[in-house]
Amino acid sequence: MTTKTKQKINEIAGKIKTMEIRGALDIAIAAASAMKEVALESPDSELISNLNSAGDKLKSARPTAVSLPNAVNYIIHLAKINKNNKIKLSSEIEKFIKNQENSLKKIAEFGSSMIENNDTILTHCNSDTVVEILKKAHDCGKKINVVCTETRPRKQGYITANALSKHGIPTTLIIDSAVHLIMKKLKVDKVIVGADTVCSDGDVINKIGTSQIALCAKEMNIQFIVATQSIKFSTESVSGTIVKIEERDTSEIAGADELPGVKIMNPAFDITDSGYVDVIVTEFGVIPPQAAYGLLKEKFGWKLNRDES
Amino acid sequence: MTTKTKQKINEIAGKIKTMEIRGALDIAIAAASAMKEVALESPDSELISNLNSAGDKLKSARPTAVSLPNAVNYIIHLAKINKNNKIKLSSEIEKFIKNQENSLKKIAEFGSSMIENNDTILTHCNSDTVVEILKKAHDCGKKINVVCTETRPRKQGYITANALSKHGIPTTLIIDSAVHLIMKKLKVDKVIVGADTVCSDGDVINKIGTSQIALCAKEMNIQFIVATQSIKFSTESVSGTIVKIEERDTSEIAGADELPGVKIMNPAFDITDSGYVDVIVTEFGVIPPQAAYGLLKEKFGWKLNRDES
Amino acid sequence: MTTKTKQKINEIAGKIKTMEIRGALDIAIAAASAMKEVALESPDSELISNLNSAGDKLKSARPTAVSLPNAVNYIIHLAKINKNNKIKLSSEIEKFIKNQENSLKKIAEFGSSMIENNDTILTHCNSDTVVEILKKAHDCGKKINVVCTETRPRKQGYITANALSKHGIPTTLIIDSAVHLIMKKLKVDKVIVGADTVCSDGDVINKIGTSQIALCAKEMNIQFIVATQSIKFSTESVSGTIVKIEERDTSEIAGADELPGVKIMNPAFDITDSGYVDVIVTEFGVIPPQAAYGLLKEKFGWKLNRDES
Amino acid sequence: MTTKTKQKINEIAGKIKTMEIRGALDIAIAAASAMKEVALESPDSELISNLNSAGDKLKSARPTAVSLPNAVNYIIHLAKINKNNKIKLSSEIEKFIKNQENSLKKIAEFGSSMIENNDTILTHCNSDTVVEILKKAHDCGKKINVVCTETRPRKQGYITANALSKHGIPTTLIIDSAVHLIMKKLKVDKVIVGADTVCSDGDVINKIGTSQIALCAKEMNIQFIVATQSIKFSTESVSGTIVKIEERDTSEIAGADELPGVKIMNPAFDITDSGYVDVIVTEFGVIPPQAAYGLLKEKFGWKLNRDES
Amino acid sequence: MTTKTKQKINEIAGKIKTMEIRGALDIAIAAASAMKEVALESPDSELISNLNSAGDKLKSARPTAVSLPNAVNYIIHLAKINKNNKIKLSSEIEKFIKNQENSLKKIAEFGSSMIENNDTILTHCNSDTVVEILKKAHDCGKKINVVCTETRPRKQGYITANALSKHGIPTTLIIDSAVHLIMKKLKVDKVIVGADTVCSDGDVINKIGTSQIALCAKEMNIQFIVATQSIKFSTESVSGTIVKIEERDTSEIAGADELPGVKIMNPAFDITDSGYVDVIVTEFGVIPPQAAYGLLKEKFGWKLNRDES
Amino acid sequence: MTTKTKQKINEIAGKIKTMEIRGALDIAIAAASAMKEVALESPDSELISNLNSAGDKLKSARPTAVSLPNAVNYIIHLAKINKNNKIKLSSEIEKFIKNQENSLKKIAEFGSSMIENNDTILTHCNSDTVVEILKKAHDCGKKINVVCTETRPRKQGYITANALSKHGIPTTLIIDSAVHLIMKKLKVDKVIVGADTVCSDGDVINKIGTSQIALCAKEMNIQFIVATQSIKFSTESVSGTIVKIEERDTSEIAGADELPGVKIMNPAFDITDSGYVDVIVTEFGVIPPQAAYGLLKEKFGWKLNRDES
Repeated sequence: MTTKTKQKINEIAGKIKTMEIRGALDIAIAAASAMKEVALESPDSELISNLNSAGDKLKSARPTAVSLPNAVNYIIHLAKINKNNKIKLSSEIEKFIKNQENSLKKIAEFGSSMIENNDTILTHCNSDTVVEILKKAHDCGKKINVVCTETRPRKQGYITANALSKHGIPTTLIIDSAVHLIMKKLKVDKVIVGADTVCSDGDVINKIGTSQIALCAKEMNIQFIVATQSIKFSTESVSGTIVKIEERDTSEIAGADELPGVKIMNPAFDITDSGYVDVIVTEFGVIPPQAAYGLLKEKFGWKLNRDES
Repeated sequence: MTTKTKQKINEIAGKIKTMEIRGALDIAIAAASAMKEVALESPDSELISNLNSAGDKLKSARPTAVSLPNAVNYIIHLAKINKNNKIKLSSEIEKFIKNQENSLKKIAEFGSSMIENNDTILTHCNSDTVVEILKKAHDCGKKINVVCTETRPRKQGYITANALSKHGIPTTLIIDSAVHLIMKKLKVDKVIVGADTVCSDGDVINKIGTSQIALCAKEMNIQFIVATQSIKFSTESVSGTIVKIEERDTSEIAGADELPGVKIMNPAFDITDSGYVDVIVTEFGVIPPQAAYGLLKEKFGWKLNRDES
Repeated sequence: MTTKTKQKINEIAGKIKTMEIRGALDIAIAAASAMKEVALESPDSELISNLNSAGDKLKSARPTAVSLPNAVNYIIHLAKINKNNKIKLSSEIEKFIKNQENSLKKIAEFGSSMIENNDTILTHCNSDTVVEILKKAHDCGKKINVVCTETRPRKQGYITANALSKHGIPTTLIIDSAVHLIMKKLKVDKVIVGADTVCSDGDVINKIGTSQIALCAKEMNIQFIVATQSIKFSTESVSGTIVKIEERDTSEIAGADELPGVKIMNPAFDITDSGYVDVIVTEFGVIPPQAAYGLLKEKFGWKLNRDES
Repeated sequence: MTTKTKQKINEIAGKIKTMEIRGALDIAIAAASAMKEVALESPDSELISNLNSAGDKLKSARPTAVSLPNAVNYIIHLAKINKNNKIKLSSEIEKFIKNQENSLKKIAEFGSSMIENNDTILTHCNSDTVVEILKKAHDCGKKINVVCTETRPRKQGYITANALSKHGIPTTLIIDSAVHLIMKKLKVDKVIVGADTVCSDGDVINKIGTSQIALCAKEMNIQFIVATQSIKFSTESVSGTIVKIEERDTSEIAGADELPGVKIMNPAFDITDSGYVDVIVTEFGVIPPQAAYGLLKEKFGWKLNRDES
Repeated sequence: MTTKTKQKINEIAGKIKTMEIRGALDIAIAAASAMKEVALESPDSELISNLNSAGDKLKSARPTAVSLPNAVNYIIHLAKINKNNKIKLSSEIEKFIKNQENSLKKIAEFGSSMIENNDTILTHCNSDTVVEILKKAHDCGKKINVVCTETRPRKQGYITANALSKHGIPTTLIIDSAVHLIMKKLKVDKVIVGADTVCSDGDVINKIGTSQIALCAKEMNIQFIVATQSIKFSTESVSGTIVKIEERDTSEIAGADELPGVKIMNPAFDITDSGYVDVIVTEFGVIPPQAAYGLLKEKFGWKLNRDES
Repeated sequence: MTTKTKQKINEIAGKIKTMEIRGALDIAIAAASAMKEVALESPDSELISNLNSAGDKLKSARPTAVSLPNAVNYIIHLAKINKNNKIKLSSEIEKFIKNQENSLKKIAEFGSSMIENNDTILTHCNSDTVVEILKKAHDCGKKINVVCTETRPRKQGYITANALSKHGIPTTLIIDSAVHLIMKKLKVDKVIVGADTVCSDGDVINKIGTSQIALCAKEMNIQFIVATQSIKFSTESVSGTIVKIEERDTSEIAGADELPGVKIMNPAFDITDSGYVDVIVTEFGVIPPQAAYGLLKEKFGWKLNRDES
């Protein structure tokens, strides 16, 4: 690798580490772009080894970001297939980046097709994919009502509610613990949420509170839909690695002196079992959660160990 | 009725209306005391009619307070049985009042017997019966851990957490939407909650959020216990009357300008199906929810219509 | 017994046997009236034995009619209590008969109280109690929509649909196998059905098709309500006797030559497990199915064997 | 109390303590007989206090035997009602004893009525009530097949299998872990088991293994029947007392040197939730588990605290 | 395209539109044959564009026929792979057509292997694949009993029952609402039904009534098998498109004057959730419903959008 | 084929038949080695036919061994791909063999990653993969507790318990019927079992008792993990073939004279529905059971019939 490229990699890795570059999609795109530079300047004989070492550097910048190894591994996968054809490789990487950029639009298309006229839809927290789906459905002329949960402790539900309301969609806000009653009372038709991570067995890790909403939906036979880019599918989970649930600062919940002597726990995410998820809407289409494994293998250059030896 | 007694009834009814007298127990005791005065001064021939008219007056003071008709009807029931024996009647009414006063202690005894050493117990909102049970269990030397939910919007969970913590019980506070994750993570053994009203079919009306906690408990096979005085059992529900869920002021959730154009809904209670309730701890013992109907009939002078004609 | 009374008993028994007197209620009333005559003319010393032998005669006229032994046994029960007071006994029997006559009205009152404005209600077959409940709710000014199943093979759903429609209630008819889809599509709020028999464990025997509707309601968390007179509660089932499901003539389904070589089965009823029944609306109020046993014991003079020896 | 009666009480208490008198029924009968003697010789003024002190003595002989307090309390209950009538009291106690003696026969009658021709029935461990029911059904001419589990560690299933087989009933023995497969393969229609204790909420404590059989039956919608004398209903559980599960000697499972360093656990019973029990067959008839509470109150002189004060 | 070929395409499209060509299989075969002609006469440079425009023409002839886009898209997929080799392309198309023709036989083989001796099998409506499976099992010497539902409103169950009965298979016919009772009574082992459409998430759209049969089977742990050609798998559902449920003429249910003022709804199909389907038998083997997505992608040239840009 | 090679095949087939070579892995490796010899000495023109006939010979040696056809078919699959390149073919076969040899280690890695510190894990019978996973987790420094079932009739649980205990892992042994109670009492976190066979629909065939443990785990929401080599995935089940459950000698359960006249059934395995299995840990990673079908197709040269004609 040239010094300039090394610097480039270091710079991107640095920005990912300091969270200057953040968000699953932006991280993936930045990493892929950097990897492309490495690929283009590497002689064929050093292509794979250079990409491997650049990839390791990038991946170590934020070990918990699920989109990062996905992007890196996919570029290496493309490089192996197009080992002796830099032009093809370059165009394939660009295609990957473009697809990332287009993925939100694709998901909005697929997801909005699932929404029917007069649907009442409940969502939790603030998810880009969900907001785009709902806006798209509205823009297509479908009459919908949306119920947003407050989403304690940081109340991201306010962001969702305001965005949808401004877009002209009739929106209702409720506290997190009113989900069960309101689902029945307002005759909710569908739940749509985003995802932080999708595991190889189809389990979905998302904002704390998601799994009990899924439970309520199951009990009332309400469709539970997850909308997310495939870049958030966790290849690590294929090897059994357990996704750690982040514990956030307790000051998000209560001030230091409000609850003297009381321990506060503030987990950021929970895990929704695949059995509670009807479908996952990705940029590749609408799949059952159990098909996550197939996508992981196909899309991210995940290697079966049989072929590795 | 003498003018003085009428005034007394009016005064008590007024205090119930203005919520000077509040809380299921205090309302029941005040009503019973007033009814006793009516009984004592009424000639035998006017006893029942006087009690009926005083009772109607009292009941109309707060039509939604489930303990009010229970107390009134029970006194009338006692009067019918002891029609010609004022001394017996008086002592029976006093016994009723005393039993109400002792009921919290009785429930604490029965409920704390159900708690085992090293139990981790989750509760929701702030319930007198639950707090007494937990303190009693602690005082008996049982090592327990308690998880309190925040209980949005008014955060009554803080009151519970502080009360238990001050009493020396290790206490953890979580947001309402963390229940599902935390039940698994902390291996919660039991859920104990209070009740606003118990219906004739065993359904339990309690603070918003209760029913989805019950759902989580069911999914993980965690015992779900309701602790409540029998005075909160709804005789009205025997005749099919649906308990209305109070909608509280939306300012409890968000300020007027935080969510412009967004509708806010703030229901105060929800309904937990009897199928999710393992037992109800009352001052008469530990009963299955389906036995609520039997207690209603036996305790509150509720008359089968066959016998009325 | 006098010859005249014997003839009376024989006559009533005959009419029950030939189904000139039919319907749970009419049978109960006719039997009770005949028993009353026996009671009035019997000397005190022969009262119980005369009632027993008249009762046996009546009961044998239609061994499967659940209301018959209930009525007979209750009269004997009253006779034992009022052994030496013919006037009291006579008035108690009349009260019983009157209560039977009023029971439909009582059930309509209790049941209609459970219906909320804008409810969509599904019913099956043609049940007097259900029709009265729905009419009463409509007459009270509640806006309701009703879905009737066709109810093959004899299409009694047509009778229900026409009756409700004529009464001004918007009514939809569907085939029996469309229940699952339509429950979701029309967002059904409640199912209300009648009962042929209620067993001591709360299981409900009703028109074939009822149990799979209950299953659908359970899956979607839709309230499943049974409305029936307590005279249809089976005391026999307390001693373990299994209610036989009547097999009706196959010509109700298909003509003899339509399906040569094919066996046709035409069971008239099925069994809905108590676990699928939310409440039973009786003339005594709204009870959980598990309280059936208590009513049986209290209402129909059913004797615990401890007391018999 | 006379010295002789004191000796009698001491003698019976001693035999219960040393397990010379054992088995729920025999203990109950012995205690009731001793209490009768106390009652007969006590002057009216000392009747209740003598019975109370004799009862305390007896109850302390085996604090975990559920039938003991039931018998004792019921006699005291009878004494209170028949305070001034020794002859009536004596005959009532005798009736109670006779009813205990007849209870097995009654249960066999009620239980065998629930069995249908060609039924395949699975049972666990060795229960008197179940064996009597099955023999009775066979003797009535019903063709039945029975599947017995081995019932490790003490293999009481062998006793059941041999008893039924000798009685002419086709019997199959399987290991405990084959229940799930065999239920499907042999198309089991019903499960019938006995009970060690029935709690006030309808939960059933019985031989280890019962609860997972109940789970299998639930999954396949197979009727799960408990057959037991009401003397085994636990009044203690009404006040929240938790039934302790006996841990038996580990040598029943493995010899001391077979599993060096391995801990062995050998619990004797487990708890079957009332939700998995269809009905309980008692000597008073076939009841839903939730009606256990009603029987407890009615039969064993259990006092509501309201009436105690 | 030559005028002749255009005419051919128009002719086939016309026949599909007028339903002269009907049935998922016949439509697929006719479309593939027409596409083959287009392919053979197109110069390489126009191959794909010609096929695209012919395909569009054909697909528009019956937009709801799920097998039509599957056949068309697969031919285009083959053309892309074999762009420069007309002979290979022609033989591949012929192979596809042959496979369609053989699919019924393949499904009969695979499906009949799943049937065990002495099985009692329930089916609904009239499905070619199911009838072939059952005949094949019978022809292999397996003793089976079949239960057919009537299948209101058009009673296609009669066709199935007569076909199987004539083939020598013992067959029973029941009304649609007797399924739940009869499953228990006749101890049904398996349910086998066909499919109108299989969605990408494994949900199955089939004759109205199917989904509640699936519910009954789930409750009793009876295996629920769907047998269908993969040509009925809906690629459209991958992009979120909701399959519309056809509403058929109400005269199929009741004559115009039988139910004056009553609305009749007559949906032709319902949706069985993948969670209720054990396996799908296709001409490629026995798959879990969640593997539908994989087959769709592999078999019908469905393109991931990543590769399209 | 040369005579020598034929002899080799006959010899290996013979050893498989006599169970000199046994165990899924050893059989697969022996068969692959023999097939390799055939491949190396066959002229290109006879390669496939020679492999086919050698494969048939081998497969017939033990028709029920699921790993045998998997190994044979995979070698033939490799031969077709590498038809003209003996060196590549040879190295591919060796890679396959090596992967088999390494599979246990890979599974231990993946499986142990799923175990968390302080986990209590229940296992059944004696499985190599499970023992390796648990040892590996222990060796990585994770504190775990293991509960082993006795596993009647042959008590293989003793082997597991002793192996783990010797390895320093705190181990508890219980009888098979104590699973339900102990899961609750010891707060079991995960169940891990091996597999005899995995079917194409994800159902798992394993030691008798497994399926009811899975049921218990489901009821308490405890993760149920299957750990097995992919060589045990049944390709036969793709074509609907039902895996026969072996009935073993009844003397394993009881001696001939212990239960005269009683039939004993001793099935060796049972079937755990895929709906009860959370994940399957294979040497290729952690997959949902529904992905079994994909692995089968990809790994074992299973041919879609479309491509066969």
